[in-house]
Amino acid sequence: MIPPPDVLAARLERARVLPGSLQLDALVVTHLPNVFYLTGFAGSAGTVVLSGTGLSILVDGRYRAALADRGFDSHDGPRVRVVPPAGGSAEESLLAMLAEAGHRRVGFEAAHLSVARHQALERLISSKSALELLPTEGLVESLRLRKDPYEQGTLREAGRRLSAIMQGVLADLRPGMREWDVAARLEAGLRRAGFARSAFDTIVASGANSAMPHHRAAERCLTPRDLVVLDFGGVYNGYCVDLSRTVSIGEPTAEAVQLHTAVSSAQAAAIAAVRPGARASDVDRAARDVLTEHGLGDAFTHGTGHGLGLEVHEAPRLGPLRTTGAEPTRDSTEILDAGMVVTIEPGAYLAGSGGVRIEDDVLVTSNGCEVLTTAGRELMVVDC
Amino acid sequence: MIPPPDVLAARLERARVLPGSLQLDALVVTHLPNVFYLTGFAGSAGTVVLSGTGLSILVDGRYRAALADRGFDSHDGPRVRVVPPAGGSAEESLLAMLAEAGHRRVGFEAAHLSVARHQALERLISSKSALELLPTEGLVESLRLRKDPYEQGTLREAGRRLSAIMQGVLADLRPGMREWDVAARLEAGLRRAGFARSAFDTIVASGANSAMPHHRAAERCLTPRDLVVLDFGGVYNGYCVDLSRTVSIGEPTAEAVQLHTAVSSAQAAAIAAVRPGARASDVDRAARDVLTEHGLGDAFTHGTGHGLGLEVHEAPRLGPLRTTGAEPTRDSTEILDAGMVVTIEPGAYLAGSGGVRIEDDVLVTSNGCEVLTTAGRELMVVDC
Repeated sequence: MIPPPDVLAARLERARVLPGSLQLDALVVTHLPNVFYLTGFAGSAGTVVLSGTGLSILVDGRYRAALADRGFDSHDGPRVRVVPPAGGSAEESLLAMLAEAGHRRVGFEAAHLSVARHQALERLISSKSALELLPTEGLVESLRLRKDPYEQGTLREAGRRLSAIMQGVLADLRPGMREWDVAARLEAGLRRAGFARSAFDTIVASGANSAMPHHRAAERCLTPRDLVVLDFGGVYNGYCVDLSRTVSIGEPTAEAVQLHTAVSSAQAAAIAAVRPGARASDVDRAARDVLTEHGLGDAFTHGTGHGLGLEVHEAPRLGPLRTTGAEPTRDSTEILDAGMVVTIEPGAYLAGSGGVRIEDDVLVTSNGCEVLTTAGRELMVVDC
Repeated sequence: MIPPPDVLAARLERARVLPGSLQLDALVVTHLPNVFYLTGFAGSAGTVVLSGTGLSILVDGRYRAALADRGFDSHDGPRVRVVPPAGGSAEESLLAMLAEAGHRRVGFEAAHLSVARHQALERLISSKSALELLPTEGLVESLRLRKDPYEQGTLREAGRRLSAIMQGVLADLRPGMREWDVAARLEAGLRRAGFARSAFDTIVASGANSAMPHHRAAERCLTPRDLVVLDFGGVYNGYCVDLSRTVSIGEPTAEAVQLHTAVSSAQAAAIAAVRPGARASDVDRAARDVLTEHGLGDAFTHGTGHGLGLEVHEAPRLGPLRTTGAEPTRDSTEILDAGMVVTIEPGAYLAGSGGVRIEDDVLVTSNGCEVLTTAGRELMVVDC
């Protein structure tokens, strides 16, 4: 579903000051999640030119009719224009658009433009105009960091639906099922709940596989005394949610109970640390300290979480404070703020034996956080 | 599954002459399908340095153990080395690797390196060494174009499995099912048949939706007199296959029969045109001419096919001869050769009414082609 016109209009109001903030006449947006954020356009190829007066989107013939159907040209507020290719290459069409608008200092998204495409543009420019292309980073992403009310509502509903799928599949687990049978059930649940697709490769990791955070789902059967990590996500109206639970097949071993208790406490501590003004690395430390107290510091081999939105991994990163030489690097000092949505997913992994991960999605609120996913967090025991 | 060591060794033998062919000391490979092709490494972050004497792969701690388990350092033939990060950023580690090996003229994949990462490398280099980074395009892709016997076997088996899933789901179709229920069945079939994931968003397009080639799968119910286009694909041991069929819910209309007959004839003509030495654009023309004879030239709004392999859309493109000014562009003059695997998927779409697409995957052989997908191509009628 496309965000409603008033939501897109409000985003554009905030976005159109971005080029001017860097003394640019315009910003060329090529990263597709950013294109979707600004326009609701979900096709596989489209380029936006954003300026102080509005935006234009360059799409090919396949998509022009679909955009016209949406009344894309009839927004109130800043001008939105659908531009057909000028003939020739996509690069020539883009440069024709920029020239027609009289833009001279034009930013581009340096993290999302390949050297090859940049060189193609520069080759065409040098013989044509005084146009100057300037690298920028993270401009539209800076808007996406705090979710607007439409996005919060979408992520809340997506979290609710994802939790119901997890509950249903957990209730149907039986020893003897193959990991990929379980993955198929989770994914069929996504479809039936209105998700467009998985947000990432579904993880069903049983027995020794559960100790490998990057295991996917394979032919192994669920076997008594296994721990099984289920980690899946879906894309709902463009937005990604992500949920993990760990179950025991039959009565858990003492080790399994200890692992689960420690991870569960670590997760609770991290969730309690989420609030506006907290550093992302402090949330990570809250989880890590609990696992260290349980003697599992070395068993927690990844970060505590990541931002969610149009991408399944986006800012902020909730990891340990990274230092390069004396300076903390930029992304480890991010400060949480109301409207951010992040996963909280500590885990502990004992190679050759088993692992536990518990993951929920939370929205940072004005005084703490709201947990968007609701499936029970206790260690579920599958009868066998 | 990882390609067997002898397959990887043979690929490396062919790859290690690539840098020298451009007077380069080494090639930095950052495009993950290319990294997988050369090493079997399927993680989300890894960089290969390929030279005349072998290759080194730079991965972080998450992946080092997994690669060591594979005996990555014990290949016969060219040297394969797993390199841990040197500390600091990924860019610093890469430059340390290049410096240690004494490489001076180093190519990179210009279509797969962002301007931001390239700039970060250049900033680090200028203060350090005489290292020169030079853009290249399509080097590893040139090897991937013709599938080796291991790849042909994998794609053949994947095509067989994908066809069986399609047959099973077609047999179970009933009016009243929602498009996304059908998508869920196709995707569950992928899981149960050992595919790791969908190769792209599954398409189930019913009624008027079938006239939109980019429709996905939504809440609409299959309804008597609908045409329904099913188009899905899966990734099997790393390789992508792709299959489409069109069915009628209840007795087809006369228009539906005409559309299906025309597309079916067009597909047969295109398949008959596939042989080594044929131009990709001639295969497209074979399909397009048949549809034009049926008065459906304008209803065929996309190309006839695309290459398949580690990516679901790769070279060659089977489309109309593109011209920019007087010169045919490069990709439209590609010549088919034995070992290439492509889809053949003509379609015809009547806006507001319905559409038909029939798609199979074919391997170019020494004297024609082998069709890898086997589900029946006739217009199937679902009882209602």
